[in-house]
Amino acid sequence: MYAVEVSDHIMIAHSFRGDVFGPAQRLHGATFAVSVAFLAEALDEHGIVVDIGRAFEMLKEVLAPLNYRNLDDVPQFKSVNTTTEFLTRYVFDGLAAAVKAGQLGRAPRDIAAIRITVAESPSARAWFEGTLW
Amino acid sequence: MYAVEVSDHIMIAHSFRGDVFGPAQRLHGATFAVSVAFLAEALDEHGIVVDIGRAFEMLKEVLAPLNYRNLDDVPQFKSVNTTTEFLTRYVFDGLAAAVKAGQLGRAPRDIAAIRITVAESPSARAWFEGTLW
Amino acid sequence: MYAVEVSDHIMIAHSFRGDVFGPAQRLHGATFAVSVAFLAEALDEHGIVVDIGRAFEMLKEVLAPLNYRNLDDVPQFKSVNTTTEFLTRYVFDGLAAAVKAGQLGRAPRDIAAIRITVAESPSARAWFEGTLW
Amino acid sequence: MYAVEVSDHIMIAHSFRGDVFGPAQRLHGATFAVSVAFLAEALDEHGIVVDIGRAFEMLKEVLAPLNYRNLDDVPQFKSVNTTTEFLTRYVFDGLAAAVKAGQLGRAPRDIAAIRITVAESPSARAWFEGTLW
Amino acid sequence: MYAVEVSDHIMIAHSFRGDVFGPAQRLHGATFAVSVAFLAEALDEHGIVVDIGRAFEMLKEVLAPLNYRNLDDVPQFKSVNTTTEFLTRYVFDGLAAAVKAGQLGRAPRDIAAIRITVAESPSARAWFEGTLW
Amino acid sequence: MYAVEVSDHIMIAHSFRGDVFGPAQRLHGATFAVSVAFLAEALDEHGIVVDIGRAFEMLKEVLAPLNYRNLDDVPQFKSVNTTTEFLTRYVFDGLAAAVKAGQLGRAPRDIAAIRITVAESPSARAWFEGTLW
Repeated sequence: MYAVEVSDHIMIAHSFRGDVFGPAQRLHGATFAVSVAFLAEALDEHGIVVDIGRAFEMLKEVLAPLNYRNLDDVPQFKSVNTTTEFLTRYVFDGLAAAVKAGQLGRAPRDIAAIRITVAESPSARAWFEGTLW
Repeated sequence: MYAVEVSDHIMIAHSFRGDVFGPAQRLHGATFAVSVAFLAEALDEHGIVVDIGRAFEMLKEVLAPLNYRNLDDVPQFKSVNTTTEFLTRYVFDGLAAAVKAGQLGRAPRDIAAIRITVAESPSARAWFEGTLW
Repeated sequence: MYAVEVSDHIMIAHSFRGDVFGPAQRLHGATFAVSVAFLAEALDEHGIVVDIGRAFEMLKEVLAPLNYRNLDDVPQFKSVNTTTEFLTRYVFDGLAAAVKAGQLGRAPRDIAAIRITVAESPSARAWFEGTLW
Repeated sequence: MYAVEVSDHIMIAHSFRGDVFGPAQRLHGATFAVSVAFLAEALDEHGIVVDIGRAFEMLKEVLAPLNYRNLDDVPQFKSVNTTTEFLTRYVFDGLAAAVKAGQLGRAPRDIAAIRITVAESPSARAWFEGTLW
Repeated sequence: MYAVEVSDHIMIAHSFRGDVFGPAQRLHGATFAVSVAFLAEALDEHGIVVDIGRAFEMLKEVLAPLNYRNLDDVPQFKSVNTTTEFLTRYVFDGLAAAVKAGQLGRAPRDIAAIRITVAESPSARAWFEGTLW
Repeated sequence: MYAVEVSDHIMIAHSFRGDVFGPAQRLHGATFAVSVAFLAEALDEHGIVVDIGRAFEMLKEVLAPLNYRNLDDVPQFKSVNTTTEFLTRYVFDGLAAAVKAGQLGRAPRDIAAIRITVAESPSARAWFEGTLW
């Protein structure tokens, strides 16, 4: 299996609900370094998994509504904890939909899976990997 | 599949037996940067894989008996080479047992697998990944 | 000149005032990876610049009032932009005072200067270096 | 599953054919940081996956014909785009052949799979993972 | 002294003249990770050294004529070796001129010095630091 | 001022004397990532500070007597604590002598200073910088 992975980052504020979060129940923030890996069984006729430039753009588009925001104020996140894990899935869903809509410039069925990795600090990160089909 | 990974490090001395190890047969040492990833199919009701603070504590507890030690002097390691690979499994076993004993603060059956990564230098590392059930 | 540098990180929320900040005028946040380097002309009788364990503790103490906070709500920051640059100086001042108060476990006059480095993302950081005497 | 991974790098020139590559159709170049991970179900009698020194040598041997070269001038690459993805497979094939030829110093059947990771910049990389048997 | 540093990267081809360069006399290439640090004695009224967004743009503008190029074909580089060291100075000169032309959005005299760091691989880099006045 | 910096690493065992070292009084070890930067006011006729290949060799030569050793057993270190700081100076002295002996392939007087950086873990490092003349 081949994979191509590109990275970007966002800077957000948020707070969590639940005693398990300790001091992170207070409004705080994070720089999230976000990577997306597109997995494919075969390269296309150009010898690539995806157009890396398009991959960067798609990642940036999915992250844009979050960047420089207080996630506590984003309506669709009102009832959830926007944990690092949650965000791996949110970004996955956005990119999976974009791939299926053909926005990646490659036949959607050629992309087997996507892995999203989100690092919140030098010593902690999360990832979500799922198949598309 | 979701994963949350946290990292710590230890500083140990040891030596290896076997010509294959060349100069590493002499007593030398290493800073081991150790990461543990907990893998789960679903997030819990708080939106997390595990309590990241508890994950850090558990990793530190498993590493404590090794840190600032000459591993050649640790009784349970007398008959083995404490290679980077060996240590990935040793840490895996310790954390797998802790998860199964419910120390992670999540239903043990919710954790599907654990991956331990140990970097010994900027250019070499090892990992061990195993399912828990 | 010798130096010893240790690192920690904090996760904070804040917002900035001024058109120059663009989208960062909105409430957002950051993971700040913070390093402090203590500079000295000579090593002490143990062969060290400072006790590295004490250095980690002092850095953590200075960062504690900021960690998991919305800096917009910290009274002493009410009238300032808590930029990355500003924080390098804030941490410098805290550690310089601690050194001068003898908390580092070395004669204050032996520490010639301090450098604070704060990384806000994989591609941007700031530092402040100042002499103590 | 255990893995041991070692890293090296090469510096090459090349150009790509196809509008999808934009400015990369011009002759340009890259530092490729290349890692190879050998995966095995069990450690050998020494407690290792592979001799790490031999692993470094094998990686260097496979990379040598590429290093400090214009890949456009390498006869076997005449009809292909030497993309990062392509190179992950090229290095995989070279190392898979070497393992099967017994050059790794371990029974070839003991190595289950190989993963090659090639980073082209701080924000983009590719990998190829394949089983050997 | 304060500093703010931002980073970008370019991918270029080139060759060197002189036996000292060994295999690097052949046409090869590099990914250069380039950082620019602006140094200032004091922060401006917003609490910053420079507008970080403007700093990124200026760095990108200075690097643009080099990116995805064979530097051997750039007329102004015909008689020189475009070594990593040479490029630190080239980027320095471009950014120093831009600062002096007031393009940074801060009084030119407020910027005391610039440091350019160029990493060519995980194990080698160069830098050039110079005062502006 | 120009600088060129190259990096290597060693793996050693040692112990420290003095209560200040706490658990590090026990025999333990470290992977030390060691960088040497050569500083010069001007580039030579080839456009370089130093031959980077020669710089790597010289660093390796100075580190060789330490690598895969228990520093407690090295006669010349009998009466000292081989702290990270101490080692920065030891490596500096070795490389300064080599430069002055003309081994770097550049006029010794052209090298103004040397900086040695030694990282002992992801969160702690030391450096020593000194002029040669």
